[in-house]
Amino acid sequence: MNRSELIQAIRAKKSVLCVGLDTDPAKIPAHLQGEEDAVFAFNKAIIDATHEYTVAYKINTAFYEAQGIKGWVSLQRTLEYIPKGVFTIADAKRGDIGNTADQYAVTFFDVYPFHSVTVAPYMGEDSVKPFLKRSDRWAIVLGLTSNKGSQDFQMLRTGDGFLYEEVLRKVSGWGSPENLMFVIGATQTEQLRQVRTIIPQHFLLIPGVGAQGGDLDEVCKAAMNEDAGILVNVSRAVIYASSGEDFADQARTAAQDYQRQMSVYL
Amino acid sequence: MNRSELIQAIRAKKSVLCVGLDTDPAKIPAHLQGEEDAVFAFNKAIIDATHEYTVAYKINTAFYEAQGIKGWVSLQRTLEYIPKGVFTIADAKRGDIGNTADQYAVTFFDVYPFHSVTVAPYMGEDSVKPFLKRSDRWAIVLGLTSNKGSQDFQMLRTGDGFLYEEVLRKVSGWGSPENLMFVIGATQTEQLRQVRTIIPQHFLLIPGVGAQGGDLDEVCKAAMNEDAGILVNVSRAVIYASSGEDFADQARTAAQDYQRQMSVYL
Repeated sequence: MNRSELIQAIRAKKSVLCVGLDTDPAKIPAHLQGEEDAVFAFNKAIIDATHEYTVAYKINTAFYEAQGIKGWVSLQRTLEYIPKGVFTIADAKRGDIGNTADQYAVTFFDVYPFHSVTVAPYMGEDSVKPFLKRSDRWAIVLGLTSNKGSQDFQMLRTGDGFLYEEVLRKVSGWGSPENLMFVIGATQTEQLRQVRTIIPQHFLLIPGVGAQGGDLDEVCKAAMNEDAGILVNVSRAVIYASSGEDFADQARTAAQDYQRQMSVYL
Repeated sequence: MNRSELIQAIRAKKSVLCVGLDTDPAKIPAHLQGEEDAVFAFNKAIIDATHEYTVAYKINTAFYEAQGIKGWVSLQRTLEYIPKGVFTIADAKRGDIGNTADQYAVTFFDVYPFHSVTVAPYMGEDSVKPFLKRSDRWAIVLGLTSNKGSQDFQMLRTGDGFLYEEVLRKVSGWGSPENLMFVIGATQTEQLRQVRTIIPQHFLLIPGVGAQGGDLDEVCKAAMNEDAGILVNVSRAVIYASSGEDFADQARTAAQDYQRQMSVYL
């Protein structure tokens, strides 16, 4: 999926909502627990209920890997079920030397054909570039994350700014706004404006709204550009909106509420 | 496997060799290509040939993930085949927020019961700590890697030193030499002495000898401590020592050569 197709989807749905399918088998409602593949049954219901309001789904691979092979089967089924025209993200945060990063690109672009994969920047250029070689596929590189630990290294001073700013500056030179996005946490709204002075055009994947406490209005005001330019990820506040039999309806309502709030800015 | 057991194994074998099972199906010798699980058949032969000279095996998960479910089956068989008393490393370089890192710990300590897993530090404390909660299991955190891209961020100046030094200082406070190691590349021998002033006691996992050009003698001189304190990883120079039917014999010879060179220092 290329940039103009993504922007079209955003304009059509008046939404920048990305729903995070961080599906923990222990949190699936009781009535689905008997299913042969409860994770897929849950995801299918969530996708059916939310795709009208959603421009992207982000699959956090950790929750699937922790189920062993069964989990990879659920991941594949889920990926195949996501409607065409919705952007897909493998939230895998991979990062390794060149010949190894090539293998990860095969995993998340060929074996499991996602549109994009999240990538950790610590190992530098040869760990990122293998994800930038294919048309209509994206690397989404960690810039400033939404967790408490983001203060440990990302906010260290390096010369004329913070480490995460140097990451944005340097990594943005390795690709283009057509194949590169950055993760910038919603819990750091004071930094979002600063980010836009460094990378005005790139799409930002913004986690941290919902369970992590980020404010959606603040995020839209600080980070949107003329192409919208953001994907706002919400995971737990949508998929676990209810733990009962009405979980899909409650997820729909939550997704629709986010979409309405976003539509004001689109 | 705890620290004293690892040190005992090193003393008994007079070796700090870690063989990296970065098994690329395309590089498996022709006569094994017909096997139902050629990756496992190859790894089994390599393990049989090298375990006498080897104190650790490092499985680079990328090469297995890129084969889809078949790859995870090969990984599991390989892990189960590694003899008791040999240290096992999931070279997965994971790193994510706390609730996600918990899932990765389940993957690589429970589902696939490795002794250790490599972890990327960029997301900070809550991304590392979930790997430090279990006795006799280890996090091996990226410090200074062996690739060209290590210059991009790890060698940035941050206050009174380089970023990687700040990573060593801060992360070493989150665990102990009993549950925490660091990756320090062999291609950076000028830095290895400096590393030992910051973390004199921790084990270092040292990649970069062999195909990447690091010098083993230099590494032993600069990085060993009184408990040996290093694991030197060699991947391609052992497992691809020959691409013919004699691949296992040649791997044995290569491993034995490394072990002999190491024994001088042990």
